[in-house]
Amino acid sequence: MKYCCYCSAELIYDIPSDDNRYRYICMTCGIVHYQNPKIVAGCIPVWGDQILLCRRAIEPRSGYWTLPAGFMEMGESTLEAGIRETLEEANARIEVEDLYAVFNLSHVDQVYMIYRSRLLDLDFSPGVESSEVKLFQQDEIPWDELAFTAIRETLKFYLDDKKTGKFQLHTGDIIKNENCYDFIET
Amino acid sequence: MKYCCYCSAELIYDIPSDDNRYRYICMTCGIVHYQNPKIVAGCIPVWGDQILLCRRAIEPRSGYWTLPAGFMEMGESTLEAGIRETLEEANARIEVEDLYAVFNLSHVDQVYMIYRSRLLDLDFSPGVESSEVKLFQQDEIPWDELAFTAIRETLKFYLDDKKTGKFQLHTGDIIKNENCYDFIET
Repeated sequence: MKYCCYCSAELIYDIPSDDNRYRYICMTCGIVHYQNPKIVAGCIPVWGDQILLCRRAIEPRSGYWTLPAGFMEMGESTLEAGIRETLEEANARIEVEDLYAVFNLSHVDQVYMIYRSRLLDLDFSPGVESSEVKLFQQDEIPWDELAFTAIRETLKFYLDDKKTGKFQLHTGDIIKNENCYDFIET
Repeated sequence: MKYCCYCSAELIYDIPSDDNRYRYICMTCGIVHYQNPKIVAGCIPVWGDQILLCRRAIEPRSGYWTLPAGFMEMGESTLEAGIRETLEEANARIEVEDLYAVFNLSHVDQVYMIYRSRLLDLDFSPGVESSEVKLFQQDEIPWDELAFTAIRETLKFYLDDKKTGKFQLHTGDIIKNENCYDFIET
């Protein structure tokens, strides 16, 4: 970030007088350009004992499997974002049950919010960002070909809870280390 | 948003070829300037039967009471943001228990995430954004002087759950109508 998006003047990077953090500041129009983490909203679409996964057709992690999820847009709720992403990535209609996972990914300034949901029908197909959309039985989940740690941890929690039938919110942090990602439950 | 913050060229407002929404696009450097909702993270700081509230010293809603909460910053988790806001607004140290409320405020593109927490000591005082910080017994809560609907709904849920001792996550949408705000549990 180098120029003010409101007046095009060059920005400075400094701590505003009433603040305690470095921000991009426009000394011409006075605007402070705050930057904040983004929400990635998604769903676990379930049909009986099967879970719907999408094979990514775009980077990052093209070719790997994921739950339908993506950046929440302006004007929508987290739940609406999860439903929309499922429609966009899998052309699938769902009924949402409850908020199931809230994971922080501080290294990329994202917060994952994943909902449990039920597929309403089997009329699904790959959206533009997916190359394949498929229902997986529990023992078919492609654990070594999952796109993201957040997806793997969500699926692990889901299958564990499924054994007892008691589903509860799971919260945690995904921490990037040199060669791997760790998950810390919070 | 009028100019590209990377190259200062004038932006256009159009739907990118691989997208389905209007975005601010720089035709010079090719960057699409996405805008996304922000997370407001906060806490319910509890000491025995009392709840800590802060009287706001800044707009919006200056003079009204609120739970310590504010915009999540880059590089932190939602939980760290809630702890930091409590320290900044009330100079109060807490131990966080669990994520208690997730409320969408689509009309201002915010998602509130409030944690239950325990005050670690009574050495609190107003931070720069507060004019007063005070512990309230349940029957002293200033319901008519609360700053935001999200805070009122959080406190109502908290006091209801306190009766049974069973605290659970509450999710919902705060909808702006002409003269009031409605709360819809989701």
